Formats: sequence, structure tokens, C-alpha cells
Amino acid sequence: MFAVTILGNNSAIPTAERHPTSQVVTSYDQLLMIDCGEGTQVQMTRFKIRRSRIRHIFISHLHGDHYFGLIGLLNSLSLLGRTEPLTVYAPPELEQILQLQLDCAATQLKFALHFVALRGEAAGVILEEKDLEVSFFPVKHRIPCFGFVFEQQKKKRKIIPEQAQAYKIPAAFYSRLQEGADYQRKDGLLVKNNWVTLPPPKGKKYVYCADTIYDESLVPRLEGADLVYHETTYLHGLAERAAERYHSTSVQAATLAARAGAQRLLIGHFSSKYTELAPFLEECRPVFPNTELSVEGATYLI
Amino acid sequence: MFAVTILGNNSAIPTAERHPTSQVVTSYDQLLMIDCGEGTQVQMTRFKIRRSRIRHIFISHLHGDHYFGLIGLLNSLSLLGRTEPLTVYAPPELEQILQLQLDCAATQLKFALHFVALRGEAAGVILEEKDLEVSFFPVKHRIPCFGFVFEQQKKKRKIIPEQAQAYKIPAAFYSRLQEGADYQRKDGLLVKNNWVTLPPPKGKKYVYCADTIYDESLVPRLEGADLVYHETTYLHGLAERAAERYHSTSVQAATLAARAGAQRLLIGHFSSKYTELAPFLEECRPVFPNTELSVEGATYLI
Repeated sequence: MFAVTILGNNSAIPTAERHPTSQVVTSYDQLLMIDCGEGTQVQMTRFKIRRSRIRHIFISHLHGDHYFGLIGLLNSLSLLGRTEPLTVYAPPELEQILQLQLDCAATQLKFALHFVALRGEAAGVILEEKDLEVSFFPVKHRIPCFGFVFEQQKKKRKIIPEQAQAYKIPAAFYSRLQEGADYQRKDGLLVKNNWVTLPPPKGKKYVYCADTIYDESLVPRLEGADLVYHETTYLHGLAERAAERYHSTSVQAATLAARAGAQRLLIGHFSSKYTELAPFLEECRPVFPNTELSVEGATYLI
Repeated sequence: MFAVTILGNNSAIPTAERHPTSQVVTSYDQLLMIDCGEGTQVQMTRFKIRRSRIRHIFISHLHGDHYFGLIGLLNSLSLLGRTEPLTVYAPPELEQILQLQLDCAATQLKFALHFVALRGEAAGVILEEKDLEVSFFPVKHRIPCFGFVFEQQKKKRKIIPEQAQAYKIPAAFYSRLQEGADYQRKDGLLVKNNWVTLPPPKGKKYVYCADTIYDESLVPRLEGADLVYHETTYLHGLAERAAERYHSTSVQAATLAARAGAQRLLIGHFSSKYTELAPFLEECRPVFPNTELSVEGATYLI
């Protein structure tokens, strides 16, 4: 299982129907949150996403529609008795904001809150798990802002059954083969791992581009992605306004996905001015046919 | 018109059905907000309360379920182009929290945000308008916390028509009479105002007790109230837990209203553990019959 569920698909001003940005990535049995706008914890309840299963939260930038719901979520987790640690990845000032709010409430969270600061023009891996690697990269927005790449890691090499049988390797040793071990036969022959296995198949890749102006330098980040999330705050008629505000349009997101040769494009962060979202798809699909609207509560396989 | 509308009736952990504390007092054409938990701005949209008409926001204390929605509301007001000043009355640390969040977002609000700090054991008038006076008073909670009194001021004296006619005062002068002026007759007689008018009738009074432990010293604050809001986080079976957490029970709120001789009691801030609220009424009414449950979206006349 590798998928992303949309909790909020709107830009800054929440409405009764659409909420500010938040997504949950599911990788096997793990849940990871990206951004956490106001109301996210209620959206989790609504869509039956168990708050307790989140262990990592990635905050792209400190515009409120991407993090105002975080302190409330942390508070609720503590009140609900969480003891398992939680790690937040975000621009460094967020730690101070959260601490000030906890101090004013004389609240000590019942769980350890780790904080990983994202800064400047850096990029790289910030989380390595058994099956998943998460990295971050800078995007161009009005304030420091970061995108995230989620790649499932297939660590197990692929056994070539005919070869393994030809070398008479016992099935009990196959899991060691998948881990890359050589096999020492009793007759003295050392069967090299790469005689009987292939490298692990490529893992699936999800790229979250956060809030960003149209920026062709992102193309290499998107290459090989099975799913790209790119904001489309505006329809293309407002391309000028989008650029002024460091946001993107429908056509721009589709153009970037097409240039990078991504498999699929998911668009969101729609301005509250739009009550109908279908025109976003109508503008994207001629440029990049495999485009989907992010719909709150919907889950998209990666 | 003098009434209060409930936007949230729940305690700390929001659910999909119940929201953290927020209320809007309507006094004639003016709206005043009390507390602003997460999701308040969306509740305002849902219940068609115009955000732009709020000019004063009173925050009782810095537990998140009473203010986490404020920064989002301020942000939205600015994005929507508000230019009219807004005043926040709250414990002083809130100013620092808001400023830090605005600074991190490189946001300058488009309207002036005034801040009135509520501190210590002080009490007194914090807002005097033509028709309304608001004062604050300390309550006993786990951190500094304040209640608020909203009193409609009837500034106009009441004319006694027979007397005014007997003294042959022209109707054109009646509005001056209501303001307290004497009338100088052409024949030399000075008609004293209090010969022809009565003092302004007593204004209606709403007392919001915020989050508080059961505290009989509040009785004088509640005397003469037409409507009292008192929290009932727990049913009375959990009186011990309520005291430990500086909260109150159903029976305690009703007892206080009865002792103070209040006209009506409105209860709220229900713990998320309760899905049924009717038992709160069942426990209160034997002690204080004129009790009502706060229901989100409902408006209670004062």
C-alpha cells in the first residue's frame, strides 16, 4: 500500500466545504502527514484516519493555511494519552511557536516531540525507514518553503528462481539471498549473490511540491515520479496574479508534469474564489491528460 | 436585540459534530466574539455570521480550545481586505504568539490590531460603547482565566408623557429630555429634567464565566444577570475529576445560578466523552429549572 489521502484541498481562506492543506501518506502500515491547516484534526475524524498512527509530520512552510491546525492536533494527541514520540519536520521558527503556545497553557505534552529544522537551500534525505525514504527540497515561494519526496524503498533483491535452483540453493536461504548474502555451498563453491538475484525493483515515488511559483528548475525533482502533487491556486487566466503571489496555475502545473515525464498529476490548493473545480481539470488535461483533482476524503494510489 | 450565538459547545478535543468554545454576542448592530477555538471561522461561515462585523474579540484564557482559531480568523480577515481596526482582549502572552506567527509568514495585517492585556486579579470595565459596557473578572482555573460581563446600557431617560405635556414641553425637545436636559420655558420656568423623566430602565446583562472550578465567590458577579453561561465539562458523577482539572459539573453550575438568583443558565464546554447531552439538563433542572444546553448555531436571547 502506497497512497495519499487528501484532508484539505483549498488555499488560505477555509470554507464550510473546503479546508486548508493537509494530506496523509500511507506507506504499508505507516501514516505520515504533510501540512496541517486549521481543522485538520476534525477532517481526520471525519475520514476515519487514526490520529494515533501518525509518527511524522512534514510542514512545507509557515503560511498559516499549512500549519495552524498542528498545535491543536498535538494538544489533542496528548489529551488522548499518546506516549509514542512524534517528529515534526519544518522551518525552525515553528518550534518556537509551538513551545510558546504550550508554555502559555502550562501544558507539557505527554509524548516526546522531536523537531527537524528545514532551512535555506538545502535538500536531502530526512527520514529513512525500512520501506520508505523521505527527502526534502526547496521551492520558490514568498517565504522559505519546501517540497517533499516520498519513495518506497524495496530493499529486497529479486531472486531469479531458475538460477537459484541451478545452484541448488535451499529455499530456507532465500530470505538471506533477498538481503544480498552470498551462499557458501558444502562442495566449496561460493555462489555470489548477483549470480542468482537481481537488484531490488524500483520503488514508487510521490513528489509533493507545496506552494510554489511556476519553476522549471523543479523538473529534475519530478522525474520518475509515479504521482506528483502540484498546487494550482488559480486558473490560467490569472497567471499574472499567480506569479505575483508566488503561486501557480492549472496549465503551469500540467506543463511541469509533462516536462518531467511524471506518471500522474494531482492538483489542489484551489483559491476560495472558485466554487467549481471542473475547469481546473479542463485546463490541465489538454497539456497533461493524466491529471486528477484532489478531493477531500479521497485516496490516490501512488 | 441582545443575544448570544453558540459557535462551539465542546471542551478541548474537537469532534466532527462539536467544536471548541466560541460565542458571538449581538448587541443591536454590533457583534462581539468570546473565545475562538480551532474551526471558529468555518463555524461562522456555516451559521452565516459575517466575519467583517466583529470589532472586539474577548479571549478568556490561553488553553488552545479557547484561542487556536484566532490567528486563522485574523489572517482570513486580512486576506478578505478588512481595514477596520479590531481589538483583542486577552492575557498578554497572546500578543507575542500572534506577532510571532505573523512575522514567520511575513504577513502584515491590513487592519490595525489593538491589544488589551488582561492580567492578574484585576477586574473592571474594558469596553464602553454607546449601548454596551463590557467588563472582565478573574475566575479560578489551571492558568490565568477571565470571565466577561456584557451589559446593555440604556442611556436614554424615560419620559413621563403626562408630566411632559403638563409642563407644555414641545415634542421636538423630547430627545434632549431623554439625554437628561432641563427645559427652559419662555415664561421663565426652568422645568427640571427629573420632574418629567425617569432614570433609564436597567439594561440586560449577560455573564460569561469561562472555564472555572466551582467557586461560590462568583455569586456576586452573577447577581442580576438575565443570562449566565457557565461551563459544565462533566456530569456530577465526575465532580472529583472536575475539581482536579479546575472545571465544573452540571449540578455545580446550576447551584451557582440558583444562589445568584440569575434569570437563566446556559451550559456548555461538554467533555468529548459525552455523546448524549440530555443528561446535563436532567441534572441541572432540578437545581435550577431555567437551564438550557448550548447548541451550536443556536441563538439565545439575553
